[in-house]
Amino acid sequence: MKMKKFLNKAEDITKEVLEGLVMSNSDILELKTGNLVVSKCLDDANRVTIVTIGGAGHEPAISGFVGCGMIDISVVGDVFAAPGPDAVLEAIKMADKGKGVLLIVLNHAGDMLTANMAMKQVKSLGLNVKKLVTQEDVSNAPRENSDDRRGLVGCVPTYKMAGAAAHEGKSLDEVYNIAKKFADNMATLAVACRTTTHPQSGAVFAEFDDLDMEVGMGQHGEGGGGRMPMKSANDTSKLMVDALVKDIGINANEKVMLIINGTGATTLMEMLIVYRDTVNYLKEKNIEVVANMVGEILTVQEQAGFQMFIGKMDDELISLWNKPCNTPYHKKVK
Amino acid sequence: MKMKKFLNKAEDITKEVLEGLVMSNSDILELKTGNLVVSKCLDDANRVTIVTIGGAGHEPAISGFVGCGMIDISVVGDVFAAPGPDAVLEAIKMADKGKGVLLIVLNHAGDMLTANMAMKQVKSLGLNVKKLVTQEDVSNAPRENSDDRRGLVGCVPTYKMAGAAAHEGKSLDEVYNIAKKFADNMATLAVACRTTTHPQSGAVFAEFDDLDMEVGMGQHGEGGGGRMPMKSANDTSKLMVDALVKDIGINANEKVMLIINGTGATTLMEMLIVYRDTVNYLKEKNIEVVANMVGEILTVQEQAGFQMFIGKMDDELISLWNKPCNTPYHKKVK
Repeated sequence: MKMKKFLNKAEDITKEVLEGLVMSNSDILELKTGNLVVSKCLDDANRVTIVTIGGAGHEPAISGFVGCGMIDISVVGDVFAAPGPDAVLEAIKMADKGKGVLLIVLNHAGDMLTANMAMKQVKSLGLNVKKLVTQEDVSNAPRENSDDRRGLVGCVPTYKMAGAAAHEGKSLDEVYNIAKKFADNMATLAVACRTTTHPQSGAVFAEFDDLDMEVGMGQHGEGGGGRMPMKSANDTSKLMVDALVKDIGINANEKVMLIINGTGATTLMEMLIVYRDTVNYLKEKNIEVVANMVGEILTVQEQAGFQMFIGKMDDELISLWNKPCNTPYHKKVK
Repeated sequence: MKMKKFLNKAEDITKEVLEGLVMSNSDILELKTGNLVVSKCLDDANRVTIVTIGGAGHEPAISGFVGCGMIDISVVGDVFAAPGPDAVLEAIKMADKGKGVLLIVLNHAGDMLTANMAMKQVKSLGLNVKKLVTQEDVSNAPRENSDDRRGLVGCVPTYKMAGAAAHEGKSLDEVYNIAKKFADNMATLAVACRTTTHPQSGAVFAEFDDLDMEVGMGQHGEGGGGRMPMKSANDTSKLMVDALVKDIGINANEKVMLIINGTGATTLMEMLIVYRDTVNYLKEKNIEVVANMVGEILTVQEQAGFQMFIGKMDDELISLWNKPCNTPYHKKVK
């Protein structure tokens, strides 16, 4: 399949996409040297601030969630690539308002390397920074080895929890502990059924025949091993819910957040139907969905499929989730 | 190409997608008999109200824009099909709070037939209803014959203008006139480069070879005649801007709204790059973009491509556009 994308020069993609994002949200964002996407809420912040890192190519993630109540600065790498540690250090210095900085990193090799190098520099400078890693893909490692788990869409609600806690004036330890409580009780599983192409190289990520889907596919085409014939929305939902509920250990009468994250070519129609089926199936298990997102949040270019995310919720997390926020691609109205 | 969609029974799609939408937005929406998606803001409304109609299959449009500050009731037909006039009459009666109802209809044959039949019944009942048709596709008829023009994504900002004017307590004539002023000065052009499949029949909408795109494609696969080799984001943008600016008749120093509406498989990365190129090109013409939407708003299932919308703005329209609203897929924060 030939790549059919509306792009200019391959080497300009990241620069141009960030310009487009900031130009279309000039009330919320500024773009600073080093591909830093900076919230205008940072200017008069007197609180813990939130910094994150990650490559371009997953739009609207990550930088589409920079803004009041979520991320303060997103440090952007090239397409599917980590940024360098110097840019991260620069961002942390810029974000630091004297109350400390929470650095949230998705568990991918390049991002972790960069984050660890930046943390070393940060410590040598005596800055007050804590690092939180999101690693919730149930498909590629058991929960006991969660350090091997990939970070998928779970970073996005984690930004919201951390950002809302920071806006409430909580200390860095408190913000970290809240975000960690949420992140420790979440899990994601992906399914894909049509491939994507790398927007710079045109490389195809995975081959599918006319009838197959793959459960457990990572967001850069990493295999999950779960090849099987396409299933209905309802059957796919049940298979994924069972894996997630078992992994997290959710009991009857508990409350959860449910995210259906389209990875590209799968329609919102399908995502809404999967959402419906999933809520109904969780209800059968006496598990209540009290928070949700349905849409394209962290995409894999034009890959068909979706990620299903479930996270345990308690009263504190529900309250933080419902706090107002204003970012380009996630807004909560008071 | 085999259809690969996460669905259940074909005949249940519309029912299930509406259930999913309302379940995931239970603070904003209610679902009532006859596939009416109703805003919870309607309960205590004492103002002009906004009703619209259209088939499922274009998610998030249309029902994803029901909520405070936009649509009060969306009457949903089956996939790509108009609802029946009885459901529309029911919706208008439900919406009528004694200040009149604005019925907004996209110019497609089935929707127009239904709307005209409903308007006859409405008049015989002595209800105070005005009908506004959005018809802004520049590709299939010249502006002099705008009654032949298809309604594309332009309905969505029109809902916002009408909804905001209604919330300000304006009369039905005033709300109609504001929405009409906006709709009379807007234009949309679509481009597609990979087909979609009908989610019920599996029918392919259009064939593309490996290198072609088509400018002017309607949102049900209607041909636009503008087959040409794929162009860069920047060249595609220029071609579309030139057609739209000429059609509307926009002069230097005027202000516009710009929408880049992804129709399905085209990535937000591409849309943001096209947005950037378009703003820059308009700037060369001394035309200022003062409002925007970038994302999947009115989709054509998994079709790759996008619709570019431009509409003239004045101070009144800018003010209405910036009023708060809270719908599932478009929110404005105060």
